[in-house]
Amino acid sequence: MHKAGIAGATGYIGYELITLIHRHPELEVGWLTSERNAGKRFDQIFSTPWDYSLINLESAYLRTDEVDVVFLCLPHAESMEAVKRFYAEGVRVIDLSADFRLKDVDVYKRWYGIDHTVPELCAEARYGLCELYRSELDGAQLIANPGCYPTSVNLGLYPLAKAGWLGERVIIDSMSGVSGAGRKTNLTYQFVEANENITPYNVGHRHRHIAEMEQVLGAANGGKRGHRFLFTPHLVPLNRGILSTMYVDVPAGVTEESIRELYAENYAGEPFIHLLPAGTQASVAHTAGTNRCAIGITPADPLLPDGSEYVITASIDNLIKGGSGQAVQNYNIAVGLDETAGLQ
Amino acid sequence: MHKAGIAGATGYIGYELITLIHRHPELEVGWLTSERNAGKRFDQIFSTPWDYSLINLESAYLRTDEVDVVFLCLPHAESMEAVKRFYAEGVRVIDLSADFRLKDVDVYKRWYGIDHTVPELCAEARYGLCELYRSELDGAQLIANPGCYPTSVNLGLYPLAKAGWLGERVIIDSMSGVSGAGRKTNLTYQFVEANENITPYNVGHRHRHIAEMEQVLGAANGGKRGHRFLFTPHLVPLNRGILSTMYVDVPAGVTEESIRELYAENYAGEPFIHLLPAGTQASVAHTAGTNRCAIGITPADPLLPDGSEYVITASIDNLIKGGSGQAVQNYNIAVGLDETAGLQ
Amino acid sequence: MHKAGIAGATGYIGYELITLIHRHPELEVGWLTSERNAGKRFDQIFSTPWDYSLINLESAYLRTDEVDVVFLCLPHAESMEAVKRFYAEGVRVIDLSADFRLKDVDVYKRWYGIDHTVPELCAEARYGLCELYRSELDGAQLIANPGCYPTSVNLGLYPLAKAGWLGERVIIDSMSGVSGAGRKTNLTYQFVEANENITPYNVGHRHRHIAEMEQVLGAANGGKRGHRFLFTPHLVPLNRGILSTMYVDVPAGVTEESIRELYAENYAGEPFIHLLPAGTQASVAHTAGTNRCAIGITPADPLLPDGSEYVITASIDNLIKGGSGQAVQNYNIAVGLDETAGLQ
Amino acid sequence: MHKAGIAGATGYIGYELITLIHRHPELEVGWLTSERNAGKRFDQIFSTPWDYSLINLESAYLRTDEVDVVFLCLPHAESMEAVKRFYAEGVRVIDLSADFRLKDVDVYKRWYGIDHTVPELCAEARYGLCELYRSELDGAQLIANPGCYPTSVNLGLYPLAKAGWLGERVIIDSMSGVSGAGRKTNLTYQFVEANENITPYNVGHRHRHIAEMEQVLGAANGGKRGHRFLFTPHLVPLNRGILSTMYVDVPAGVTEESIRELYAENYAGEPFIHLLPAGTQASVAHTAGTNRCAIGITPADPLLPDGSEYVITASIDNLIKGGSGQAVQNYNIAVGLDETAGLQ
Repeated sequence: MHKAGIAGATGYIGYELITLIHRHPELEVGWLTSERNAGKRFDQIFSTPWDYSLINLESAYLRTDEVDVVFLCLPHAESMEAVKRFYAEGVRVIDLSADFRLKDVDVYKRWYGIDHTVPELCAEARYGLCELYRSELDGAQLIANPGCYPTSVNLGLYPLAKAGWLGERVIIDSMSGVSGAGRKTNLTYQFVEANENITPYNVGHRHRHIAEMEQVLGAANGGKRGHRFLFTPHLVPLNRGILSTMYVDVPAGVTEESIRELYAENYAGEPFIHLLPAGTQASVAHTAGTNRCAIGITPADPLLPDGSEYVITASIDNLIKGGSGQAVQNYNIAVGLDETAGLQ
Repeated sequence: MHKAGIAGATGYIGYELITLIHRHPELEVGWLTSERNAGKRFDQIFSTPWDYSLINLESAYLRTDEVDVVFLCLPHAESMEAVKRFYAEGVRVIDLSADFRLKDVDVYKRWYGIDHTVPELCAEARYGLCELYRSELDGAQLIANPGCYPTSVNLGLYPLAKAGWLGERVIIDSMSGVSGAGRKTNLTYQFVEANENITPYNVGHRHRHIAEMEQVLGAANGGKRGHRFLFTPHLVPLNRGILSTMYVDVPAGVTEESIRELYAENYAGEPFIHLLPAGTQASVAHTAGTNRCAIGITPADPLLPDGSEYVITASIDNLIKGGSGQAVQNYNIAVGLDETAGLQ
Repeated sequence: MHKAGIAGATGYIGYELITLIHRHPELEVGWLTSERNAGKRFDQIFSTPWDYSLINLESAYLRTDEVDVVFLCLPHAESMEAVKRFYAEGVRVIDLSADFRLKDVDVYKRWYGIDHTVPELCAEARYGLCELYRSELDGAQLIANPGCYPTSVNLGLYPLAKAGWLGERVIIDSMSGVSGAGRKTNLTYQFVEANENITPYNVGHRHRHIAEMEQVLGAANGGKRGHRFLFTPHLVPLNRGILSTMYVDVPAGVTEESIRELYAENYAGEPFIHLLPAGTQASVAHTAGTNRCAIGITPADPLLPDGSEYVITASIDNLIKGGSGQAVQNYNIAVGLDETAGLQ
Repeated sequence: MHKAGIAGATGYIGYELITLIHRHPELEVGWLTSERNAGKRFDQIFSTPWDYSLINLESAYLRTDEVDVVFLCLPHAESMEAVKRFYAEGVRVIDLSADFRLKDVDVYKRWYGIDHTVPELCAEARYGLCELYRSELDGAQLIANPGCYPTSVNLGLYPLAKAGWLGERVIIDSMSGVSGAGRKTNLTYQFVEANENITPYNVGHRHRHIAEMEQVLGAANGGKRGHRFLFTPHLVPLNRGILSTMYVDVPAGVTEESIRELYAENYAGEPFIHLLPAGTQASVAHTAGTNRCAIGITPADPLLPDGSEYVITASIDNLIKGGSGQAVQNYNIAVGLDETAGLQ
């Protein structure tokens, strides 16, 4: 059995990771860290019988020989130091923070407002959007797990971008369940505030996840085309799930059928991509509780002769494909296990 | 006291209308109709102590002398005959169906798929979007109450359209609570199906409410500019509320400040328009349970020198400003009562 | 117009009070206090256009001449001093905290763990459960607004208790929406924690609201019978509403019909009591958004010959009848206005 | 690999069963039936990529040789004939309806209002409450899967009943998510009706699940004591989960510690029983998405010297331990697989 350490295990992603590891035939829990709750047991933090002890990061650095992989679920900025220390110990690291997702440390600084302290590992890290970069992930020691919103957007638009069919302006309207905000207390996420409410936030090119869209989709066609992403996330009253409704322009003459063929080719054999039939849109129910991404493709106005605008819908479970599930998938790929192990 | 008849009183809009009438200092309930439940009492249909008798439409036609106004909450197509009959009796009619909203009966046929049987009353009917057409509503005998989605979109964009500042392509991403689907049984709207889910629907220029956007915003600038509306409604798990997030282009050189001034001028003194300060977005909580429309205005990318793209957010309560409340507001205007009576 | 000051106006009850006052034909908002937010405006704290200034308590003490009544929405313990100061100024006070609900300061100390600092006002204060103590409230200068759970329980069981028909052991299973916990940040009440969950709390004679049940129901029959209340509150995922399902024993020979007659007599003409017909249970939907209490009465086992056990269900809106609405009702009674003013 | 046929596969339990089978290392889907949807594919009925063909029951009877077990998810009454036919073919049957749960066909007739058509199989069927009847399930050809409510109640009270410590009157207040009503259209279960609502139903000894409580707990102590169950189920706005709050009397002198020891002994080594520490109550979050039952034990009034009343709380996921999960657990036991296979 492979063993997994989880750093920052007492958030929602940590909880989901443990759930997936329990279902994984080759993986089991090694140690768990929580700076705030070190010394307690996991079942004192969550309503579960799992009585794992919680240790702190400093102890974990001394126990890397007990695990085959460390999943890091720390806040961005805090992850840099931890990745550096675990990496130096030679253990495989899958980082779920934003710290190693962006190749360009200047871009990192622009969006996150701080200097990157380990730029050499930024170059080393592989961006773990499995379906797009699988070959680079094989054997990787350091994998940066993608953000939740960008996973839905990048999987939903990559075939278009790679083919050079994605227009300059891309409008993305995303809706996310409240678990996306993490397990912390904040008036905005209190039940009565979020329930029976819908709230747009970070409007006006202000959400950091745009950087990952620019990095992935901008490079998809050899960097020949830039894109302008107008991205509006919304907080909606459900626990989990992301739906991205995206408005794109394609070149004149590109038909719905040719787009469908393009996606079918790009995603042939992918176990976690669910391409929906014509006329069907992705909904959160398509993917909640799973590691899948569902994608729907619909012409914006079927009556117009030049149907050059499309609505692409993509949904994922933000905690699984947008976090814990993709992390496990990345591990499976990195070490050569069945990619779907623990993820059915 | 004025008396109101309500036809089709056992849907959600009917229930809300009665609630508002109970709070209205000058209005009280006359008769209520329900084809399916005639002979029963209202408290057998809803969990409420209101023991009003339910009659059928045929009886109501004979009792127009008992009421000062009839609010029609019938399905579209069924409303045509009822409007004709009540109108012929000389009673004031506020029709909450779609049947008399569109001035052009060909447009009606295109979107609703049926011939209009009383085109002469289409011409007669006033479109009751109070803030935009108040002067035409004064004394009107027949008022077509606007659709819920178009109320949020048209109030949110009208100042831009009227000023000629609204670009050709308008992208509208709307989210609605489940009461928008009406009080009927349907698997899609069952609790377990809708809860913890988000579902886009009628994607691809297929929602009939687009016709009202074209009619109002297309004509706002003297019909000089056409607009192409790309409208995607989503079903989200809350009882009530609509949020529309809209992506628009404005002419180069138009600043956020000038747009704010434009809105402030257009809506000066409006009791039910809530213009939000810079940096604030409309949320469902801004308007739930009220007759207000909240509007937020934000440049799409504040870093770009030519900030010619904007994100406009607008929210309403679909059952009140998008239905019962606007109907009462229309009545207040039509007969010269305080416009806010019953609506605080 | 009468004017109302609200102390502690930025909680959920404060928000609801303002809403009700806006609908009240004789009452309007004077000043609002918030210790934390003094100096800000109300619309910076809630998503609303109400731009009232927020002052602090010390300023409010100096402005009692501007208002006819002060509604106190402060936490228990903090309310004692404020009541004392406002009362000394001669202004009418309706206190929504627990501080003046219990007649016996020893009982207060036992349940709340602190000494009562103004016992003389405890004796002075009237317990504002309107339907039961209306005559005592007329003209009262200090009214203690009842707790939310006890309002449902006491209204639901009072006729039985008064008639001497309520058995010794009373089991009360209550469920409350999350707004009952107040507007504060706490992990338990975060959306993801409370949504899709049900949590019993304060199990085992530990909820302070039991004291109000003992006080009201214990005294109902001249204090001849004591009762033992086994009360279990549950947190359920809805914004507002309380449902109490109560299991009671009645003397042999007491029939359902006689119980129904008893309730009908006790509550004859009550505008806010909704007695449900046989076979119907109170649900939250019966009272949400209203000042009503709905009551259902059902024999526990209709097949048994000696049907001496009954299930009584009672629901209220915790923020209205369990808080703001009953406070307004108390004010209406105290000063001789129409008891239902602002509460339709 | 073992193969499973599922009859009535297009309800919520069918969906969950398929999910669990996909995670089961030894089990895979054979055929699926749906009388209404035969000829369609599963992915046309649910938002999922599973493209299994749906056949009808008559076809399934001819294909018993393709499967090792049939899980029957048919409505009660319809299950009798199907069980008879599958049983006659010699295939193992796990029936999730109520038809074979009650040993006494007269009791069945009393509660379900119809004659049992295959009483001989009633005698044959084993009641599949795994933790209590494991030894009888080994090798069983016909297992009746317990009802959801009784699973929570019987697991929660069995140790007391078996020890003869359970008093005569047992009061059970249960709350269930809406999926308990099945996947059918009904106004009561529409989103807007069930959301923001709580509704007691079947009050007054009218829920059929009482029969299973009487059968299991009544026999636990050798039938020496009868019990009177006062059971009130409530519909609460969540998708899944049951919480039962139970009020019981125990003999004088029985301490909390001795009750805890009793439960610990009874459930020693049980992989799916989660006994909670003192002072902790079962919540839906303890068991949602799992096959576990969580149990909390608390004295009703810790201040009383003779603490002879207890509050027992028990939660399960109604679709898993209350349906699909227990069905898989039963299969695992019956054929000698690891009891937890597919259920971690």
